[in-house]
Amino acid sequence: MTVIDRVRNKRPLIHHLTNQVVMNFTANGLLAFGASPIMAKEVTEVEEIAALADGVLINIGTLLERDIEALLLAGKTANEHDIPVVLDPVGVAATRFRLQAVKQLTEAITFTAMKGNAGEMATLVDIPWQTKGVESIDDDLEKLEEIAWQVAQTYQTIAVVTGETDVVSDGKQVYVNKHGHPLLTKITGAGCLLGSILTASLSVADDTVFAAYEAITYYGKAAERAASKANGPGSFQVYFLDELSK
Amino acid sequence: MTVIDRVRNKRPLIHHLTNQVVMNFTANGLLAFGASPIMAKEVTEVEEIAALADGVLINIGTLLERDIEALLLAGKTANEHDIPVVLDPVGVAATRFRLQAVKQLTEAITFTAMKGNAGEMATLVDIPWQTKGVESIDDDLEKLEEIAWQVAQTYQTIAVVTGETDVVSDGKQVYVNKHGHPLLTKITGAGCLLGSILTASLSVADDTVFAAYEAITYYGKAAERAASKANGPGSFQVYFLDELSK
Amino acid sequence: MTVIDRVRNKRPLIHHLTNQVVMNFTANGLLAFGASPIMAKEVTEVEEIAALADGVLINIGTLLERDIEALLLAGKTANEHDIPVVLDPVGVAATRFRLQAVKQLTEAITFTAMKGNAGEMATLVDIPWQTKGVESIDDDLEKLEEIAWQVAQTYQTIAVVTGETDVVSDGKQVYVNKHGHPLLTKITGAGCLLGSILTASLSVADDTVFAAYEAITYYGKAAERAASKANGPGSFQVYFLDELSK
Repeated sequence: MTVIDRVRNKRPLIHHLTNQVVMNFTANGLLAFGASPIMAKEVTEVEEIAALADGVLINIGTLLERDIEALLLAGKTANEHDIPVVLDPVGVAATRFRLQAVKQLTEAITFTAMKGNAGEMATLVDIPWQTKGVESIDDDLEKLEEIAWQVAQTYQTIAVVTGETDVVSDGKQVYVNKHGHPLLTKITGAGCLLGSILTASLSVADDTVFAAYEAITYYGKAAERAASKANGPGSFQVYFLDELSK
Repeated sequence: MTVIDRVRNKRPLIHHLTNQVVMNFTANGLLAFGASPIMAKEVTEVEEIAALADGVLINIGTLLERDIEALLLAGKTANEHDIPVVLDPVGVAATRFRLQAVKQLTEAITFTAMKGNAGEMATLVDIPWQTKGVESIDDDLEKLEEIAWQVAQTYQTIAVVTGETDVVSDGKQVYVNKHGHPLLTKITGAGCLLGSILTASLSVADDTVFAAYEAITYYGKAAERAASKANGPGSFQVYFLDELSK
Repeated sequence: MTVIDRVRNKRPLIHHLTNQVVMNFTANGLLAFGASPIMAKEVTEVEEIAALADGVLINIGTLLERDIEALLLAGKTANEHDIPVVLDPVGVAATRFRLQAVKQLTEAITFTAMKGNAGEMATLVDIPWQTKGVESIDDDLEKLEEIAWQVAQTYQTIAVVTGETDVVSDGKQVYVNKHGHPLLTKITGAGCLLGSILTASLSVADDTVFAAYEAITYYGKAAERAASKANGPGSFQVYFLDELSK
């Protein structure tokens, strides 16, 4: 049984502490994939929400200082309940605030997986990399594998480095995915949604690193099918949600 | 003249204090339906905004402690100006914080209508019900009617219990709607948008409980037509917005 | 070379401090147009973000008191780095809070352009105008030109007054655009996205006032093409994003 079938059987509930730009799209994408989103950042309730969830996703895309406590509480709860917790360090290369926040999060929480583009992931392990805002520019498989391997080792996590080529590693095994489509870079939140889908997949997986690879490949193939029908980023997004549900 | 025609004639302005996940979708859905949304949660201005609106919708989907005051002020303003105010107690069964917030809101504000799935509405009147996160699992018409009736009686409101079957009651009359489609559960904010449409409909209605029923039936039928053309949740959402505008 | 070609060559990064309703749609619209969005409101990092951006957009649609400092810092940074900064005073006619906020912003920041519907722009220069919530009702070319001219003169800015007819003026030249479609008023954030596209265009322009006119005309024509295929606001939005990418 693939991890996608497992998700659809169990319909895991994923607690999102995510950025405001992508809330709607990632909720819809996760529903299409077969799991359920719940989004909540109020300090008073995040521990209760995380405790009833099957997985927790932390995405720092539009992080505010005043929300960090909620992220910490949700992540720690995930660790205590032994459910997967995934970090998406959006734009971590862009500002000291984000770098500092990621430091705080990774010191307090053991992340099951960390997912980001090459620029973001390279920043986490001090490997030089060219970025522009929240996007990564450079691309080179050997370097990507080095970054993934370093992140996995340093944080004892599954590292998912995304881009034209995606690299997944737990510090021992390495998987490479080349499925995907440039239109994914023309819609906002495509990377963020992958974080949601990754969390859902990890929450039902036995072999977590392979499940991460399965989820990313499924995602890339859905994008390819959607792109073959699309006339631009608007219709691509519609077809992509349809394809994710298949 | 149906309540839908009335909405299109008057184009009521509905002040939303709603959750961050669904803001865009519910704004678009309400525009398609023929009314106008305005969204604002700043304490300093909510009374002014509510005072110029034709109805107020309060949805606690991603509620923060620091926003409760704004909700209270907007709701009280609606009561003072005698315009409808609707409560959507999203996820109230999930945490003590949400339950406490709903208590605070219902003590301070007289709600024209309260809308939620069976699990949420059951929680408001202490009837046991199985839920998972923000979703309701169980489904049984007699029980649904009991919940609607209890909520209507307890809060002196129009209760709208949503699910595969929707039940509307003011504690005297009961209306049942079976129009709708499972794809509504595959897009985020379908229930929340119904809250927007309900508020707009109540703001132009003479017979409010019947207007609530009309609005829900219209909504369910639009979903059925959209689903007949859709290939998945992505295209369903597009067709659904188109159908709501017809 | 048109300003649209320049945007696609340079792919400017636009820092948005914008309203929560339209974040996703404007990010997608700006990506379709060929530029890149970054959205961030945390006081601690806005100066760094603005400093690495090619333009800054400030939109007060769902403004909170606690976010004003971030808007001020980002705008001042744009001025210091001599990159364009655009103000979209959404709903400024509706409340004293918004009017006060705009006063604070225009006193501290020199805006390259200010964009709003007639009601919003008229409010900025104390010209009487009929509005309803965040929408403008009245429409009359001579009056629109007067408003644009006054805003441009008063704030030493490029004034962009939007509506069925759009008027652009820097207080010397006046450009009028009649391309567009009523369906733009049936989707939320159409005006807000124009603000994003305007900022991107100004960031690559030599002749800024003509570039503003080019961007608006392009936008209106894309809407016309999308509307010719659409069956309602749902499909219009999809086609519109596709057309913006062409």
